Amino acid sequence: MKETLKFNKVVIVGVGLIGGSLAINLKDKNMAGVIVGVGRGKENLEKAVELNVIDSYTHDIKEAVKDADLVFLSVPVLSIVPLFNEIKDILKDGAIVTDGGSAKGKITEEIEKVIPDNIHFVGGHPIAGTEFSGVESAFKELYEHHFTILTPTDKTDKVAVKKVEEMWLACSSKVVVMDAKRHDLILAAISHLPHVIAYNLVNTIADLEKDNDDILCFSAGGFKDFTRIASSSPEMWSDICKMNKDSLLETIDLFTKSLTLLRDEIEREDKDAMIREFKRAKIVRDELIEKTKDL
Amino acid sequence: MKETLKFNKVVIVGVGLIGGSLAINLKDKNMAGVIVGVGRGKENLEKAVELNVIDSYTHDIKEAVKDADLVFLSVPVLSIVPLFNEIKDILKDGAIVTDGGSAKGKITEEIEKVIPDNIHFVGGHPIAGTEFSGVESAFKELYEHHFTILTPTDKTDKVAVKKVEEMWLACSSKVVVMDAKRHDLILAAISHLPHVIAYNLVNTIADLEKDNDDILCFSAGGFKDFTRIASSSPEMWSDICKMNKDSLLETIDLFTKSLTLLRDEIEREDKDAMIREFKRAKIVRDELIEKTKDL
Repeated sequence: MKETLKFNKVVIVGVGLIGGSLAINLKDKNMAGVIVGVGRGKENLEKAVELNVIDSYTHDIKEAVKDADLVFLSVPVLSIVPLFNEIKDILKDGAIVTDGGSAKGKITEEIEKVIPDNIHFVGGHPIAGTEFSGVESAFKELYEHHFTILTPTDKTDKVAVKKVEEMWLACSSKVVVMDAKRHDLILAAISHLPHVIAYNLVNTIADLEKDNDDILCFSAGGFKDFTRIASSSPEMWSDICKMNKDSLLETIDLFTKSLTLLRDEIEREDKDAMIREFKRAKIVRDELIEKTKDL
Repeated sequence: MKETLKFNKVVIVGVGLIGGSLAINLKDKNMAGVIVGVGRGKENLEKAVELNVIDSYTHDIKEAVKDADLVFLSVPVLSIVPLFNEIKDILKDGAIVTDGGSAKGKITEEIEKVIPDNIHFVGGHPIAGTEFSGVESAFKELYEHHFTILTPTDKTDKVAVKKVEEMWLACSSKVVVMDAKRHDLILAAISHLPHVIAYNLVNTIADLEKDNDDILCFSAGGFKDFTRIASSSPEMWSDICKMNKDSLLETIDLFTKSLTLLRDEIEREDKDAMIREFKRAKIVRDELIEKTKDL
């Protein structure tokens, strides 16, 4: 009989939507002896204990992680490497550290440079989220049907990868293991580029408004949907742009090149070319909706 | 006491979501003696009669319009001028023609060149819609709280404008009268540019997929919202791009220029500049949502 994975002590650094939802699943599947939350805000951590998402909390990350089997860093992407550096020499032999950062190349590279031999780092990214944050927004089904991408390197311990994989599978997530560079290009394409475009679109129209007051008041539902992601956190997104700079710039350049061609087709009033391009997009988008309609 | 506007005979050319919803309102407010639908598809027109959206129908536009007081052209933007040319010499003295086309400059210009003295054309654009089409998707509340822009010129008969305005007010639409050029720039900004960008984004990712299979399968809800408009009709949108070419190119160029600046800020890892730009967009977008939350 297969033995269920169990970590004696799990530390969740950042008990919000992502970290909190993982904790709820670990408790639900009885995969953690004890779950300790770490963070700066007292109120959120107290709420997390009250909601039974975590067992206890501390603001002292070093104190928390020293006897942990698994540490999940659910913090802004720019904080992951500094936090790892802070704890790497305190962790116990064989401890596993994983994260939820939405850019993986730089993090993996930086951590591999400094990681002690007896510690395992498995880069991870659960591709899930809602518009809400804080532990009160956490829920068990957040990861259901959603992908989690793991980005171990050749040097990463296979058993540690297996354990992290099992943890995410227990959250009903679909786990895929791939190279960090491929992860970063995929995320640039499906998430980081769209965010940059949405921000830029809203600003373009705001600039136009200076001369032509009240353009946006005419916008209808489609525009609101299209620009929803422009309401995302500016600080978080400037961090992501920095951490995934190379892939993001690659996709921005492809997008711009393609837009330039489309612009010329519009200028030439090349109906066939326009219809061909719009159809190509429509088919891809309709197929995507069809494939994911049950999710 | 104010007399309610009443047209003895209204002809709706194109009895779909837009034309059908107007007809429903005209009937509801008793503003039309008789409503005749014109179109090519028999099934849709028969359904329109069955649903009591129109009183009767014909495929012969000339026969339909000869004694009409009001003709509403609810057809693809490229068909509006040709249809007007087809009926202009048949219309009765004082007849009003209006339309629902989402680009107004070229249409207004072309029609003004050929319009007989005793006929009135009032360019119009109800900014409303759903993802559905056909008369069965028409409903009374479609125009409620939505803007309708009218684009008469200096030469347009004031009484005719007033009547068309009153008609849209009766649909609970908010009516704004403006220059056709301003309308076209506004629509380019809030609708035509976003469509071009959405199509282009999906194609950019599809191009990336050739080398990196299955990028889109990782996309989450945000991406689907963002690209919803890429599922719009390619034929309709190539027509709109043609009819609103000048304003659309103007907004594409502004967007590209702004994206180039943002790209450089990302490349330089200029955190302050990125946060400033993202914040600016977030504030504009959040304000828009706040202002329109009750709609």
